[in-house]
Amino acid sequence: MTTKKRRSLFSFLKNNDWKQYWTTKISTVSQETGNSIVRGYPLCDIIESNMSFAELVFLVLKGELPNEKQKTMVNVLLCSIGDYGFNSMVSVPGRTITSASPDSPMPGIAAGLLSLGRTYVSPQYAGELLEQSYATMKKENLSVEEIADRVVREYTDRGEAIPGLGHPLYRSDDLRAESLLKVQHELDIFGEKSEIYEAIRVRAEQEFDREISLNWPARVACIGAELDMAPFEYTGIAAIAYMPALIAHIQEEVTEGVPLRIIPPIINDYTGVPERPLPERFVKVGAK
Amino acid sequence: MTTKKRRSLFSFLKNNDWKQYWTTKISTVSQETGNSIVRGYPLCDIIESNMSFAELVFLVLKGELPNEKQKTMVNVLLCSIGDYGFNSMVSVPGRTITSASPDSPMPGIAAGLLSLGRTYVSPQYAGELLEQSYATMKKENLSVEEIADRVVREYTDRGEAIPGLGHPLYRSDDLRAESLLKVQHELDIFGEKSEIYEAIRVRAEQEFDREISLNWPARVACIGAELDMAPFEYTGIAAIAYMPALIAHIQEEVTEGVPLRIIPPIINDYTGVPERPLPERFVKVGAK
Amino acid sequence: MTTKKRRSLFSFLKNNDWKQYWTTKISTVSQETGNSIVRGYPLCDIIESNMSFAELVFLVLKGELPNEKQKTMVNVLLCSIGDYGFNSMVSVPGRTITSASPDSPMPGIAAGLLSLGRTYVSPQYAGELLEQSYATMKKENLSVEEIADRVVREYTDRGEAIPGLGHPLYRSDDLRAESLLKVQHELDIFGEKSEIYEAIRVRAEQEFDREISLNWPARVACIGAELDMAPFEYTGIAAIAYMPALIAHIQEEVTEGVPLRIIPPIINDYTGVPERPLPERFVKVGAK
Amino acid sequence: MTTKKRRSLFSFLKNNDWKQYWTTKISTVSQETGNSIVRGYPLCDIIESNMSFAELVFLVLKGELPNEKQKTMVNVLLCSIGDYGFNSMVSVPGRTITSASPDSPMPGIAAGLLSLGRTYVSPQYAGELLEQSYATMKKENLSVEEIADRVVREYTDRGEAIPGLGHPLYRSDDLRAESLLKVQHELDIFGEKSEIYEAIRVRAEQEFDREISLNWPARVACIGAELDMAPFEYTGIAAIAYMPALIAHIQEEVTEGVPLRIIPPIINDYTGVPERPLPERFVKVGAK
Repeated sequence: MTTKKRRSLFSFLKNNDWKQYWTTKISTVSQETGNSIVRGYPLCDIIESNMSFAELVFLVLKGELPNEKQKTMVNVLLCSIGDYGFNSMVSVPGRTITSASPDSPMPGIAAGLLSLGRTYVSPQYAGELLEQSYATMKKENLSVEEIADRVVREYTDRGEAIPGLGHPLYRSDDLRAESLLKVQHELDIFGEKSEIYEAIRVRAEQEFDREISLNWPARVACIGAELDMAPFEYTGIAAIAYMPALIAHIQEEVTEGVPLRIIPPIINDYTGVPERPLPERFVKVGAK
Repeated sequence: MTTKKRRSLFSFLKNNDWKQYWTTKISTVSQETGNSIVRGYPLCDIIESNMSFAELVFLVLKGELPNEKQKTMVNVLLCSIGDYGFNSMVSVPGRTITSASPDSPMPGIAAGLLSLGRTYVSPQYAGELLEQSYATMKKENLSVEEIADRVVREYTDRGEAIPGLGHPLYRSDDLRAESLLKVQHELDIFGEKSEIYEAIRVRAEQEFDREISLNWPARVACIGAELDMAPFEYTGIAAIAYMPALIAHIQEEVTEGVPLRIIPPIINDYTGVPERPLPERFVKVGAK
Repeated sequence: MTTKKRRSLFSFLKNNDWKQYWTTKISTVSQETGNSIVRGYPLCDIIESNMSFAELVFLVLKGELPNEKQKTMVNVLLCSIGDYGFNSMVSVPGRTITSASPDSPMPGIAAGLLSLGRTYVSPQYAGELLEQSYATMKKENLSVEEIADRVVREYTDRGEAIPGLGHPLYRSDDLRAESLLKVQHELDIFGEKSEIYEAIRVRAEQEFDREISLNWPARVACIGAELDMAPFEYTGIAAIAYMPALIAHIQEEVTEGVPLRIIPPIINDYTGVPERPLPERFVKVGAK
Repeated sequence: MTTKKRRSLFSFLKNNDWKQYWTTKISTVSQETGNSIVRGYPLCDIIESNMSFAELVFLVLKGELPNEKQKTMVNVLLCSIGDYGFNSMVSVPGRTITSASPDSPMPGIAAGLLSLGRTYVSPQYAGELLEQSYATMKKENLSVEEIADRVVREYTDRGEAIPGLGHPLYRSDDLRAESLLKVQHELDIFGEKSEIYEAIRVRAEQEFDREISLNWPARVACIGAELDMAPFEYTGIAAIAYMPALIAHIQEEVTEGVPLRIIPPIINDYTGVPERPLPERFVKVGAK
């Protein structure tokens, strides 16, 4: 995905010329006025125009404004998490940390987002599988079915679970993914990359002889890929999508929650060694 | 702001009855299907309806859908950061950390958000001043001018800067705040709380005998307060508003940035003690 | 505590002379060899000499090596958390986040440390009370009893809990604080600042007519203050003290824990509005 | 490394029996007194005995106290970072974030640690290579030279850099790694796993026809492996080792640093599109 060659730190140290040590195409700010030009557009005009947040997200990430379909698709992605109550591995740690550190919402927000990982919500891993599969398919001139077959075989041979298939918590279809898929078809944003993941899903159903659905992270990866976004970009969108719930839970915790959150005795168990004395070589400070 | 009395951990430990240890009004999720009901509305319907993200944010935080003006105001808040290039204390640490830890965007995102604090972007502190001023004004039956006078005198007496006035980086008006104010007036969302901060600003101009403007955090605090949001809630909205830029910079860093970000020698200085040997009592491991 | 006047960003922008934008007294590193001189001592000599970690902590923070008593005291502080099983608001969020994001221990470590706050473990707030009390006592030439009286009255008048007194979770004495106090006396590191907090404790017992003990954060603040450390410094030591447990729990989680950590149904409750349909204005994407 | 089979969340949901949802071998705490038994030993005895922090780290992580050599080795690891001035991707982001969020050291500490990643300091990736190489060697009954040959060939074929070889920032040997190696030999803690990495190093020198040294992360991985620690465990030790510097820099920042840390104009460049007007469809809020 990178076309520009990245410069090494060595090359800067060698020349001691640092002007281009930090470069960006995203925005530039007047040191005098603080006026920012975001992807070329004056920030003040963006604010006063009521540009929709979905448009802003697309603009900032991709450099140009979205068309109507892209705008709708980004907006729907942003609304596709909502909240997950106490099944949430984002809001619950966010609340726990806020309970202990209640002076600001930021520790809870930062910590909550760190839960977005390989086993929860993050579409990054499904997206990396998709991008690698696509690259291999193009390079080796394979069909969608051929690359799907190879992916399923490789994961099966290694005894690893294929990212994006099934749901870790619910046995049924991922309903959010189903809703996203409907919108994706309605907007006609379903191209070759989405077909690859669909083929992987079908091939996996054959392999394991049971119904298997694509989960939310895989569906987001397909949609993100069709919007020409990189995995880090739609993973960021997933993080934004979790923010309203995270903030609402943090506010609920500081106003109505229990100060100090432990694991209640009824759901925990100590399985370690029983109490024992320290070896004799340890003597009290000051003892002769 | 809290009406419900918070239960202590003691009361749960004493009764060993934990059913209400965690309660929420935000959503409930079916353990079978994973279907989530967000503030009463089925998540799948939210997704398929293309509800705007600004509406979702308001719904999740406040429990009910916004009217048109509230929806517009929240959307404009979400778009009022855009990006701040290399003047950003959010994106720059986010990029630096991603440079060192490039396997996922989440460390950079979490770290970047931790920069939202007392001296940068967070509207929490202006909001807390505003809420305290409003409460005192109501309790003591003061006029807007009287509470403003008291605030300015108290901070001046303590030799502290008043939150929300002026800009730490730019000497001129805060242009984003100006644009937000225009929208606020246009939507007629300018009530008593906004008047308090305006009175503080005017009173401070008299006190310090120079032009002083309200900055972005103060303006966001006023607007958030008019929308009946708590400081943690609009601080969370400020965090969302910074996320598109943060994500875009992280993606730019992993594709075009310099791997390993140091402080270049031309902008740093060592001012500590010169090299010296360890005291003689320190001998090499294994030395006799 | 600051003697040097901090330079503003304006002064750098105005002159466009950035050489001293970043300065440090802590260490300097050869750009050629990577050899570091830490507070004057070559890092390689430190490593090879088996300097104790407690000595290194003191050296890096304070600029000079500790004497024997200081070294013992810092080491004892570092060992005074151990682990707190499932009563821990550090390890439990650390485990939860690692469960969701298991590719690295760092998200769990960072998130766990964010729990060190006003209501859990952090000695910062007791320390700030102590430093302010000490400064006022010296400035107004008060006795230890007089400043203690004023502190207790001020907090009581505002209806606020006094930091450092009692324990949020256990009704008895804080045993770790008791052990630390024994060591403090044994090493004869109990000076005027420790006496201030003791006087506050005694005065509070009179005020509330019950036995009250100093908790771990208050004891750490006293000891840190006697070692001439700032609140941020001994709060950092508290963070280090929690790290072994945090790391051990994270390792236990990835090897033996349950992948995906929710709040079990037997300890949670939904108290929000029942299911309801979206208003009619929301129609499905693509519907006419 | 896991012997116990991890239970799935399904099995708990199915039975609605949650007693063993959270289990630990690390410690147990009296709900009455708050007394903690850490790996069997009473925490109060640990505190009063002046057990060294290196012993505590080993005890908490491994379940038993270390022998003298293990204790020395862990202590030396903890002291092997010291500080890296402005070449640090831990302390510098920690300072920047503290500059923006100066109410507590914890945001800066948490963010700083998030820099420990694949390209900076973390020994996890060298450790994972080492553990996989060791497992393959044992499984296929290979010699140390054979597994080293295979590793170098595999990375070379894929065009990837081998973790643990050379230094990203300094062209010379990694002096800290050299010092650690001396101590490792002195303590006679140099076994088969260390030999594997040495063989990889030698084989890589042949392949690339130049001198190549093992860097700090690789050396820490070797030592950690010889101490029978998992990669997450010695990565945690690396994080502890960086904490004294991180704390010292944060304290220096709040007392002597510049409030608000930007990237100075002399080292940055905007390379994006020039200013342009928004498309005509964007009209001001309230405009007809």
